[in-house]
Amino acid sequence: MLLALVLHAAAIEGMWEPSQLLSLGQPLRAAGYLDDPARLGDLRAAPLGAVVSLGGCTASFVSDLGLLVTNHHCVVGHLQRAQKEGEDLVETGFYAASRQEERSGGKGARVYVTQSFEDVTEKVAGKIPAKTGDVQRKALIDERTKKLVGDCEKPGGVRCRVASYYDGLRYTLVRQLELRDVRVVMAPPDAVGNYGDEIDNWHWPRHAGDFAFLRAYIGRDGKPADYSPDNVPYAPPQRLVVSPRGIEPGEFVMVAGYPGHTERWRTAAEVARDATTHLPAYLEDGTWALDMLESLAREMPSEAVKVNVPRSYLSNGVFNARWTLEAFRRTNVVGVANARDESLRRWVEADPARAAVYAPVLAELSARVSKHDAELERDRVMGWVGRSDLLSTARTLYRWSRERQKPDAKREIGYQSRDEARYAARLADMQASLSLEAERRLLERFLARALSLPAGHGATELVAWINAAGPAGSPEAMARAAVDRLLAAPALATAEGRLDWFKQGPAAFEASHDGFISLAVALRPYDDARELESKEDAGAYARLRPRYVEAMRLFDPTRVYPDANSTLRVSFGTVQGYHPRDAVSYAPQTTVHGIVEKMGPHPFDPPAALVSAIAAGKWGSYADPGLATVPVDFLSDLDITGGNSGSPTLDAKGRLVGLAFDGNVEGIASDYVFDAQMARTIHVDVRYLLWYLDAVTQADGLVRELGLEPTL
Amino acid sequence: MLLALVLHAAAIEGMWEPSQLLSLGQPLRAAGYLDDPARLGDLRAAPLGAVVSLGGCTASFVSDLGLLVTNHHCVVGHLQRAQKEGEDLVETGFYAASRQEERSGGKGARVYVTQSFEDVTEKVAGKIPAKTGDVQRKALIDERTKKLVGDCEKPGGVRCRVASYYDGLRYTLVRQLELRDVRVVMAPPDAVGNYGDEIDNWHWPRHAGDFAFLRAYIGRDGKPADYSPDNVPYAPPQRLVVSPRGIEPGEFVMVAGYPGHTERWRTAAEVARDATTHLPAYLEDGTWALDMLESLAREMPSEAVKVNVPRSYLSNGVFNARWTLEAFRRTNVVGVANARDESLRRWVEADPARAAVYAPVLAELSARVSKHDAELERDRVMGWVGRSDLLSTARTLYRWSRERQKPDAKREIGYQSRDEARYAARLADMQASLSLEAERRLLERFLARALSLPAGHGATELVAWINAAGPAGSPEAMARAAVDRLLAAPALATAEGRLDWFKQGPAAFEASHDGFISLAVALRPYDDARELESKEDAGAYARLRPRYVEAMRLFDPTRVYPDANSTLRVSFGTVQGYHPRDAVSYAPQTTVHGIVEKMGPHPFDPPAALVSAIAAGKWGSYADPGLATVPVDFLSDLDITGGNSGSPTLDAKGRLVGLAFDGNVEGIASDYVFDAQMARTIHVDVRYLLWYLDAVTQADGLVRELGLEPTL
Repeated sequence: MLLALVLHAAAIEGMWEPSQLLSLGQPLRAAGYLDDPARLGDLRAAPLGAVVSLGGCTASFVSDLGLLVTNHHCVVGHLQRAQKEGEDLVETGFYAASRQEERSGGKGARVYVTQSFEDVTEKVAGKIPAKTGDVQRKALIDERTKKLVGDCEKPGGVRCRVASYYDGLRYTLVRQLELRDVRVVMAPPDAVGNYGDEIDNWHWPRHAGDFAFLRAYIGRDGKPADYSPDNVPYAPPQRLVVSPRGIEPGEFVMVAGYPGHTERWRTAAEVARDATTHLPAYLEDGTWALDMLESLAREMPSEAVKVNVPRSYLSNGVFNARWTLEAFRRTNVVGVANARDESLRRWVEADPARAAVYAPVLAELSARVSKHDAELERDRVMGWVGRSDLLSTARTLYRWSRERQKPDAKREIGYQSRDEARYAARLADMQASLSLEAERRLLERFLARALSLPAGHGATELVAWINAAGPAGSPEAMARAAVDRLLAAPALATAEGRLDWFKQGPAAFEASHDGFISLAVALRPYDDARELESKEDAGAYARLRPRYVEAMRLFDPTRVYPDANSTLRVSFGTVQGYHPRDAVSYAPQTTVHGIVEKMGPHPFDPPAALVSAIAAGKWGSYADPGLATVPVDFLSDLDITGGNSGSPTLDAKGRLVGLAFDGNVEGIASDYVFDAQMARTIHVDVRYLLWYLDAVTQADGLVRELGLEPTL
Repeated sequence: MLLALVLHAAAIEGMWEPSQLLSLGQPLRAAGYLDDPARLGDLRAAPLGAVVSLGGCTASFVSDLGLLVTNHHCVVGHLQRAQKEGEDLVETGFYAASRQEERSGGKGARVYVTQSFEDVTEKVAGKIPAKTGDVQRKALIDERTKKLVGDCEKPGGVRCRVASYYDGLRYTLVRQLELRDVRVVMAPPDAVGNYGDEIDNWHWPRHAGDFAFLRAYIGRDGKPADYSPDNVPYAPPQRLVVSPRGIEPGEFVMVAGYPGHTERWRTAAEVARDATTHLPAYLEDGTWALDMLESLAREMPSEAVKVNVPRSYLSNGVFNARWTLEAFRRTNVVGVANARDESLRRWVEADPARAAVYAPVLAELSARVSKHDAELERDRVMGWVGRSDLLSTARTLYRWSRERQKPDAKREIGYQSRDEARYAARLADMQASLSLEAERRLLERFLARALSLPAGHGATELVAWINAAGPAGSPEAMARAAVDRLLAAPALATAEGRLDWFKQGPAAFEASHDGFISLAVALRPYDDARELESKEDAGAYARLRPRYVEAMRLFDPTRVYPDANSTLRVSFGTVQGYHPRDAVSYAPQTTVHGIVEKMGPHPFDPPAALVSAIAAGKWGSYADPGLATVPVDFLSDLDITGGNSGSPTLDAKGRLVGLAFDGNVEGIASDYVFDAQMARTIHVDVRYLLWYLDAVTQADGLVRELGLEPTL
């Protein structure tokens, strides 16, 4: 039917579970998928069987010898761990022309191959008496989860986890083969893979060659093994076929990968709280903090490098908050969510049987959102106070000293023997990013804010600690005095000091006169209370949210996919541009000429080899027929999120035509709601990847391993 | 012939003289013009007969009662002069529902109706002996010009000027009727007329309602007269017909108006000097000065308002320089100009007779460009030093004291009795924008630079003045000491002080110990030398440039239009968008919905009446059929420049469909070279104007005077 061909005008929202794809045959075919949907849902067949997680990123097997393709930005850590003294592989790029030249991506590098899903809802959440307290409910679920995971992992070589779907309506035990010898094969220079860097981040038109190659190795016995020169390439059960034809505007595409987290099942009250309270407040304080760090970097060049990382995090966070709020406004997210929940409420109340089950759930969920409202400002201020590196270190060290009193198995997760070495390393490493001047400015502002909180809703323990030593005065003066005291000679300001305190017992902390340490001790009642609160919340939500989702799905059967949870998902739709604003159109493809057009100071300084290859104008078989040149990146209306980075983009026959690597700024609120008109996924085109390998890297071996012949 | 229809894909570069239009019948028809080209060139017929100059802006008669339409930004001065105590007509807008409510646009407001052109080339440049010195040649041309203008203006009521075409290859005496009673009829609020302000300036997509109405009055005796309540509306010989149908993408449009200045006949060497020396140097120093003023405004709120105007000028200048250089790079302006001049040189040298005439011209022009090269840095530094308000005032006052020694008629232009009152007013007014701290920072930098100039090419007089009083030291230290001395107690820092010095004779200046005054006296030899140099340059160019243009036109007969010179011109082409960069397309029309889309803090704060009218969605007959809503602004590929502001945009039958009001940033280098791919003119659509009058202002009387019926 011809009409079906225009369906691609509207995106098909959803990050689908593989098991759902069988029932999506009609929309898949309508969007242009040409293969069997049943095959698409099969973990033991290509393409899904070839799609793996790197932990935070996605990759896919593209040869029988364990070759993986993913994003450049997913292998930055691998490159840093692989480089030798004096090298900067992120900057220069890397290509191993033979397997001998491949380098280990580091001890922590992993490839996770999903092997099976098992429904464990009953085992996790079944048979919990209704009158079980929420804290205890949370403890019970945690305990059952640990047991399931432990049993699953017993045979070794696999990693297991219990994933919650639909906010705990279903629990699934996911088992993944864990490959531990991961090597770097090829990565373009940063100026190619990350062309445009922070300026282009989230933006279209984009010209990043965000691709790289890894290879998974396995022991000669066929079992996962740590790095060893004796290991052999892992022979994946499935691999993707690369399509050098690429993809055209309007054509079907899908992405398979491991999206991390979305918030699409939040209640209207929760969305409204984020839209009207949390995000605006974060935007305000975050903007202040960002400005503070930027002024500091300008005024004191010695501090600039120290605050680089927090500044970049804040910059991302503030950017994200600003655009999310903008998208909320544009799409009236709060109004839509309110109308939806209000319809649900009326539907629930229209039937006494339904009302008996769900009305109390809706009421309690609604009440719970505002439960801590009176303390919001206190928690916000304490959150910013807690961003002081020295204070958070003092609190963590004090906690360590107490957890060490318990047998290892009884300790809180993160405070067990196996965590010790990692934390000690962090205590040493943090020196590079510790700026006492940033600490001072941050604390002066937020301690003063804490001192100005309304009575009855104050940061009692913090205020008491400040009052105990300082003379009374304006909040600003008292905060300054307190910060002077904290920063007089902080024991934790050196690596030695921190490592020394890592050995101390609770009594030493409690007797200490050091500012940060005594403050950490003073804050213990506050921290304990928050921890209990959080466990109680988690238990309550584990009880309430599944019922809310259940009611919503009964009321609105079109809401058919769960929030992202780092499990394997498939999104599908078509290649298409968008209209970001009045009179402006974005075409869905960029070209190599756009790279030259953007050239200028960093981050728009492509390597000379790329620039001359573009100037030479030899496109071989890699040109797009419509554009008559090599395309670089393209847009689709697919529904993805963080974790999907590196995901293979597949055409109507399941062949590799690109890699997803970013979303657009207009779709930045997709974690809450997917705006089909504006939200777009940005992919690197496989033809740019192939042309680059062939014409610039001259990586003939790699091109051949992908099943193709170099033509340039 | 069908092929002709696609001609609109390439812009037809040129700001044509009316007399040229007769010979442009073919390209005019090819572009879609439907009327008689002969009629189009006729000053005594519509449309050209209706197009007038406001001095710096263009306007056109749109009723038999002297009603004029122009840009909002062309009547800002009129509104300020028309407003009463406590009013802010720029902010609120203005509408006179009856003629009695119309207000005078001020004593200086003018409407110039072009009446005739007369070729006076022989009278201006003829019969000058070849051996006449350049300074004398300049004096002779000036004298002849003054005589022609004086004779022409003798009857009164007209303003005459001698305009130079093709760099003096032709001189034309232009006679214009000068109407002196100009009243404000209607202007939308600034937030409509100037929506987007500096942020949107030069940018597309644009949403400014940049239109306003004036009315010209005349004495009851039918002669131009100063404002008087007894005056009557001027009945223009011609008026434009308003087309409520508007215009569609791809259709023919033309603009008639008074473009001020272009540089398209500059030699390659001159273009190269601007591209590689002048503009980059200005960009560097201008960016420093802009940053300096911005820091100052941030650090000292009391200074912020004082430096507002220079900051805005600098901001525009720096913006302009940056984008001009960017466009130079994109279109390889220097390379193209070099190739053109090189071809010209070869053509000249290929024929001995031609070579005899033109080769010395090319050689001398080429040498002259670099004549002052050794002093470029000195002149640049002295230029920035001269931006000190107090120093430039001291120099001007000293010049006044000397000119006053001469009979009035013999004084330099600008220093005659009739200029006195205006200059006294400026001396008083300058207090509002005088920032001693800005003077300090500017002078400290550039005096230090002056002290560091290479020997033999230094600012001798300035350096001598600094050395005379200060102790030797580093340039920075000596500059600081000199500035301390200048700013110790400057006599010119108050209005009283300046006005007092305005009365003094040269001896008082020469005896003064005031810093700025004694520096002005010390700089007299420098100033006199520069003035002589500039007169000599002008005389030489008056001799050389016409021959260069003549040679170029013989060599390349396609170069058929003269540089803009504030005389009446016509440009034509079509409505079309453009591709500003890879994967981005700009549609040629914006809509009222784009106004809402852009809403935010100032300058994106449209008045509530406009917002509700858009929300109401009643478009009446003003909707564009393709867009199904009211269009706001549109783009064309027309070739215009500053001075064209307010120019009527006419359709294929010469009817008013919009007003030109800006160019786009990608075409900012159009003064040098017209980039047909990228340069666009921005117009306000007559349908937005009419809809606004009808739906928002409810100016029924005005709509009827335009020959239409209100429909909303």
